[in-house]
Amino acid sequence: MQLNERAALNLSHVREKKPLIHNITNFVVMNYTANALLAMGASPVMAHSEDEVEEMVSFAGALVLNIGTLTIDWVNSMLKAGKMASKLNKPIILDPVGSGATSLRTNSAKKIIKEVNLSVIRGNASEIISLKDLDSKTKGVDSIHSVDDAKNIAKMIAEESKTIVAITGPTDFVTDGKDVILVSNGHPLMGCITGTGCTATAIIGAFLAVDENPMTATATALAFFGLAGEMASKKAEAPGSFMIELINALYTITPEDLKKGCKIN
Amino acid sequence: MQLNERAALNLSHVREKKPLIHNITNFVVMNYTANALLAMGASPVMAHSEDEVEEMVSFAGALVLNIGTLTIDWVNSMLKAGKMASKLNKPIILDPVGSGATSLRTNSAKKIIKEVNLSVIRGNASEIISLKDLDSKTKGVDSIHSVDDAKNIAKMIAEESKTIVAITGPTDFVTDGKDVILVSNGHPLMGCITGTGCTATAIIGAFLAVDENPMTATATALAFFGLAGEMASKKAEAPGSFMIELINALYTITPEDLKKGCKIN
Amino acid sequence: MQLNERAALNLSHVREKKPLIHNITNFVVMNYTANALLAMGASPVMAHSEDEVEEMVSFAGALVLNIGTLTIDWVNSMLKAGKMASKLNKPIILDPVGSGATSLRTNSAKKIIKEVNLSVIRGNASEIISLKDLDSKTKGVDSIHSVDDAKNIAKMIAEESKTIVAITGPTDFVTDGKDVILVSNGHPLMGCITGTGCTATAIIGAFLAVDENPMTATATALAFFGLAGEMASKKAEAPGSFMIELINALYTITPEDLKKGCKIN
Repeated sequence: MQLNERAALNLSHVREKKPLIHNITNFVVMNYTANALLAMGASPVMAHSEDEVEEMVSFAGALVLNIGTLTIDWVNSMLKAGKMASKLNKPIILDPVGSGATSLRTNSAKKIIKEVNLSVIRGNASEIISLKDLDSKTKGVDSIHSVDDAKNIAKMIAEESKTIVAITGPTDFVTDGKDVILVSNGHPLMGCITGTGCTATAIIGAFLAVDENPMTATATALAFFGLAGEMASKKAEAPGSFMIELINALYTITPEDLKKGCKIN
Repeated sequence: MQLNERAALNLSHVREKKPLIHNITNFVVMNYTANALLAMGASPVMAHSEDEVEEMVSFAGALVLNIGTLTIDWVNSMLKAGKMASKLNKPIILDPVGSGATSLRTNSAKKIIKEVNLSVIRGNASEIISLKDLDSKTKGVDSIHSVDDAKNIAKMIAEESKTIVAITGPTDFVTDGKDVILVSNGHPLMGCITGTGCTATAIIGAFLAVDENPMTATATALAFFGLAGEMASKKAEAPGSFMIELINALYTITPEDLKKGCKIN
Repeated sequence: MQLNERAALNLSHVREKKPLIHNITNFVVMNYTANALLAMGASPVMAHSEDEVEEMVSFAGALVLNIGTLTIDWVNSMLKAGKMASKLNKPIILDPVGSGATSLRTNSAKKIIKEVNLSVIRGNASEIISLKDLDSKTKGVDSIHSVDDAKNIAKMIAEESKTIVAITGPTDFVTDGKDVILVSNGHPLMGCITGTGCTATAIIGAFLAVDENPMTATATALAFFGLAGEMASKKAEAPGSFMIELINALYTITPEDLKKGCKIN
């Protein structure tokens, strides 16, 4: 199947099956992530207590782990949920927000990669580099590296961890360690609102719940989200309006639109 | 007094008295809830530390307890705030978000119902059913039952707990165990954004602060919020714009609009 | 330099240097604050764990401490981050949200003022009064005093703590204990959405990162945010649309617009 057909099919399946996506994510983006998942047709739930994550993830179609606004007890919950999801063969995606900025973030991301059976890791270039390179430093949660800087490290991590690694940027780079898919959908205004990276991760989570191949799930989800950004940019010129139009686009884009609008190589 | 007149009066009184509504609620909806309460004319405060909830609730016109994104320490704060509010005869409303999905949620909801003198419980059908039926299971935070499925259980809970129980759905069902009020305002797009249930609960909280009869406060608040959804749907066709227009409508609907637009039986 | 020229320069410098602003702030406003800082051109990061705040603040251009939705462990993180920032001579601003409403808030605000080398304190009139007057009581997080009520106390605090104190209201009052700057930009709809005070504080944080004089940084930041409110009010008549247009305005206002639109005396 062509990747643009796979994209359309994945979107259709999310809207039909409405998979429950269990998010253990940061405080900044919880509301926006939930609205993005709902708008696209999935069913989000946010739950982070050690006392309920194992039960909650057992109903889920996918688990999304995001280390923004992190504390140690949240890492423990992520590990607990992640191990249960691994045991149940549910797809799991990690967003290493701010990895490289502090040791708490870098070490927690590495621990999750080691102890949880991840399907996908999605980050910006600086975050991906920090997962291998101890000397790398990033500034806060925004990347100071280009996607090109991180390509080889992404391949190494993918191979070692038997996971898909996606670096997002002007052109997204998706790899399983050998093959590469490039996705060039998107719009610069996506960098002017908070949590677009986190939202991309959650949307990949929704596609993972309906597509058994994590490589195609990741690439097609990024194309879908990027296309939503392109459509939103036609209606909004500033970030306030853009964040609203982006949610609208996740709701209004049809599988047919996606088939036509995909820029995947 | 007719219920549509009571609705108009309650809205007027909220705007005149600007009651402080103390919310102990989940991370996903805190911002939207605060904006909804402000837009309608109430004064929201969010405070959850065990070290301040008793003091904070002493100023409040109503207390809103919501068990989304729950942890044990938040349950303790809810019980502490709830007991103080009970002692001070302040109205308290519980939103059992996700009850039925995990034992933490179900048991916490039941504990609050047992230990706190609640005026109202508002949930979707699956959540209300879970409060009585141990075998019932729900999927995440969205209902898998119809309002009809939950009617008898709602009446039983209302009678046993001497509280109003409201099941929200396409037609809302409000009962004190004997009488029933049906509210049919609303719009399907309300199910496409996160936290509309939680917002309904907070708005009932604001009406409880100005209407001593919790049955009429609940029904008229649901009519007001449903009417806001109807008005928002005239200006927005997708969930991003809809969530903004819903806040606008809570601000612009006049008591006279509400008197005319109420669909309460 | 005239203050309107300083305002334009500060805005230009934020957009050129994109300073990292480290926020330890409340759950209600995290998303909106991050979006406001991004829209104006700064780079926000939210991090509150005791295990990472010292590392994170070391990269930052300014530290923003905000005591809404407070718990004791967050106070500890604020003190830890604040002491490290003091040591590194980084500007720090405190927003004493709800000080006066509960002893937890009042005592925490006072402790931070005592132990951290603050550049600025920004609050509403009731909050500022509570920092000196033990008998003062406020209702929740909204002010029950006028800016005039708080002027003398603001001057006393500024002098004693060697910090700038800003009381925001219809006309903002900024003082170093001797001199006073008044800022009359703004619009009443800013009081109808949640977190405008918190956003003002974060925007002052961004200006502190580029202007060594905390008095002019504070006054010009308040003029910028107030002008954004004025511009938003031309496109929005209700709070839902207004909160979106306010973000748009923070992005679209040029230094030249600000130079012309400043109302600083």
